Amino acid sequence: MTDYAITAADVLGAARTLHGKVLKTPLLPAPRLSELSGATVLIKYENMQPTGSFKERGAYNKLVSLSADERRRGVIAMSAGNHAQAVAYIARQFGIPATIVMPVVTPILKAENTRSYGAEVILHGETLAESALMAQKTAKERGLTLIHPYDDPLVMAGQGTLALEILEDAPDVDCIVVPIGGGGLISGIAIAAKAKNPKIDIFGVEADFYPSCTNALEGSTLPIGGPTLAEGIAVKTIGEHTLPIIRDLVSKVFLVGEQQIETAINHYATLQRTMAEGAAAAGLATLLAHPETFRGRKVTLVLSGGNIDARILASIMVRELERANRIISLRITTNDVPCLLGQLAGRLGELGANILEVSHRRLFLDVPVKGVSIDFTIEARDANHAATILTALEKDGLSPHLLSSLGTAYQG
Amino acid sequence: MTDYAITAADVLGAARTLHGKVLKTPLLPAPRLSELSGATVLIKYENMQPTGSFKERGAYNKLVSLSADERRRGVIAMSAGNHAQAVAYIARQFGIPATIVMPVVTPILKAENTRSYGAEVILHGETLAESALMAQKTAKERGLTLIHPYDDPLVMAGQGTLALEILEDAPDVDCIVVPIGGGGLISGIAIAAKAKNPKIDIFGVEADFYPSCTNALEGSTLPIGGPTLAEGIAVKTIGEHTLPIIRDLVSKVFLVGEQQIETAINHYATLQRTMAEGAAAAGLATLLAHPETFRGRKVTLVLSGGNIDARILASIMVRELERANRIISLRITTNDVPCLLGQLAGRLGELGANILEVSHRRLFLDVPVKGVSIDFTIEARDANHAATILTALEKDGLSPHLLSSLGTAYQG
Repeated sequence: MTDYAITAADVLGAARTLHGKVLKTPLLPAPRLSELSGATVLIKYENMQPTGSFKERGAYNKLVSLSADERRRGVIAMSAGNHAQAVAYIARQFGIPATIVMPVVTPILKAENTRSYGAEVILHGETLAESALMAQKTAKERGLTLIHPYDDPLVMAGQGTLALEILEDAPDVDCIVVPIGGGGLISGIAIAAKAKNPKIDIFGVEADFYPSCTNALEGSTLPIGGPTLAEGIAVKTIGEHTLPIIRDLVSKVFLVGEQQIETAINHYATLQRTMAEGAAAAGLATLLAHPETFRGRKVTLVLSGGNIDARILASIMVRELERANRIISLRITTNDVPCLLGQLAGRLGELGANILEVSHRRLFLDVPVKGVSIDFTIEARDANHAATILTALEKDGLSPHLLSSLGTAYQG
Repeated sequence: MTDYAITAADVLGAARTLHGKVLKTPLLPAPRLSELSGATVLIKYENMQPTGSFKERGAYNKLVSLSADERRRGVIAMSAGNHAQAVAYIARQFGIPATIVMPVVTPILKAENTRSYGAEVILHGETLAESALMAQKTAKERGLTLIHPYDDPLVMAGQGTLALEILEDAPDVDCIVVPIGGGGLISGIAIAAKAKNPKIDIFGVEADFYPSCTNALEGSTLPIGGPTLAEGIAVKTIGEHTLPIIRDLVSKVFLVGEQQIETAINHYATLQRTMAEGAAAAGLATLLAHPETFRGRKVTLVLSGGNIDARILASIMVRELERANRIISLRITTNDVPCLLGQLAGRLGELGANILEVSHRRLFLDVPVKGVSIDFTIEARDANHAATILTALEKDGLSPHLLSSLGTAYQG
């Protein structure tokens, strides 16, 4: 074990350091997800940390180690997200000045949150790589200590404390599913969990668009890059310290697609009543995509963070209702008899449909002169009910035309 | 104390009964809400119960008390929401047949969830009162035991176990804020908490539209009824067993409006990354509406349930972004020069605006012939930034016209 960047003793030491300083998050059973998957599912709610992710663990363990002189000079980090917020939040606790470099495309809310913790935010670079160069340059110029988001033994050991909490609360867990960006979280977890229970399976998961760990493990050259919901694990290079641990101790690394991540985010919202950001939902996406791997086992999903943009979550929830065919849009074109709208609305109510939107068109060019076209967006109980409603309208002679999707406003 | 329907010993007994059978939910600090309010805020996450609310506590304590004969014949409950799901879920655990009567206007999802726990659902009545009559009639006809949602000593004692957990985890809490519908939850909490610490303040909160407890306590005749987001506490009559306890042991009952509830739901989603239904958010709404009552104190908010419709939550989150003036819509009408759309989009990007929607209009009657009108919905960093963008466009000679709100699709 001494060949690795960290040992189990390092994680135990980090756990003592963090005790009473960083929240021990809940580990709770998820009966609805267990029913869905055939596994016994437990969730480790790291999204309940004050800044909404596990990153506070590594940040605390690193910052507490700095000398008085290093603390006085300050720290710098490069991150578009959770690492930025965690470093800013923990630095404020220690009274350490913090500078955070973020790519210029960083969502406004994340930059604002980071500033709200008292950090100086520098928006620079089109990509994380460009921002990283800027952070290194600024660190040298200003004499700041660079806090790496994952490839630092103290950070890795801090993240690993999460595994000790899981095994303290549920010693019989037989696998843990962990998202992989640069590998800091999974390497810490693997070192700590395997030392407690060598038989436990640690599974990793990456987004299809960012298979950097998979490429490193398998020598493959899958393309890297793309617009992923899981920006927290959109990392182009796996860590040098983390890779050897992952290679030896992680049982398998899965890849999940954007649609699977989106559905998992929605399941967390609607079945578990909690907010999962894309990276954090990747574990649930894996569980649902590979039920045969997990069936009958006691699985912990690490819900690593909850910092998802409100507008993105809103549009995911509405899109998922659409996909379940519970929300459909239909157009009825007919002669413009008075009160038609009222009659149609009444008929839909009789059929048990819940009317969400009505749009009444007279101007459009594809409507016959003196005709009228009315678009209804309705919510049905389920896909069968939606089909029953369409059939009934057909029998009424109304010739409903099913529109392929909701209006553009709902397309996110 | 013996004049009340329940004693502290009843709640302690219920806690022993529920131990290991009903989830002990997390009690966690909420630093962002503490900053907002000036109080030290803890959240009791009852929305993490399997059916998403505290109602499982009372349902378990009641159903476990039934005789073998009563269990065989089955139970019936009247509820449009959490009580229905909790009774169905706990009844299935005991193998007791459950029938649930719901008003015909019950959201489809709640009826489906209740069916998914194996209960027979009868949709009957325009109002809860009509459904209640149906439940009583059906109970008699079929020999079923009626499980009252609040006015039953065993149910009240079950709900009160939540207070014992709060005081076990945080003995120095000095007030607890609890939503009031029929009063089952707050009466159980008050009996248990006051016995442990007579100085603790128990505060209740009702929705403006349903001040039934306030009317009973103050002899007032505030109107009752209306479309509230807090349907879980939309109860017209406070319980006969619960009222005397509330009168003696609850320090004050607050009223909160719909807008305050909506904002609180959004705060839970964006700051705490958790889903609160309207009734559950009423406590946070109270804290924010009356900071002077809570400032400097250690307050527990009972997040009583998380069963909020996905579509409603989505529309609340988007509306709150609008209210913060971070999302604005503006119309630019000009000559239709080629590439105008691209130029405008580029200019908005330069100004730091994030473009969410574009609508390009040529057909509408209020656009000059050969002119074009383009509507942009953009996200700014905050209201000041939005104003800066509008000023810059004005200087460019584009005469932006601020539209009052987003399209109808986002109006929920």
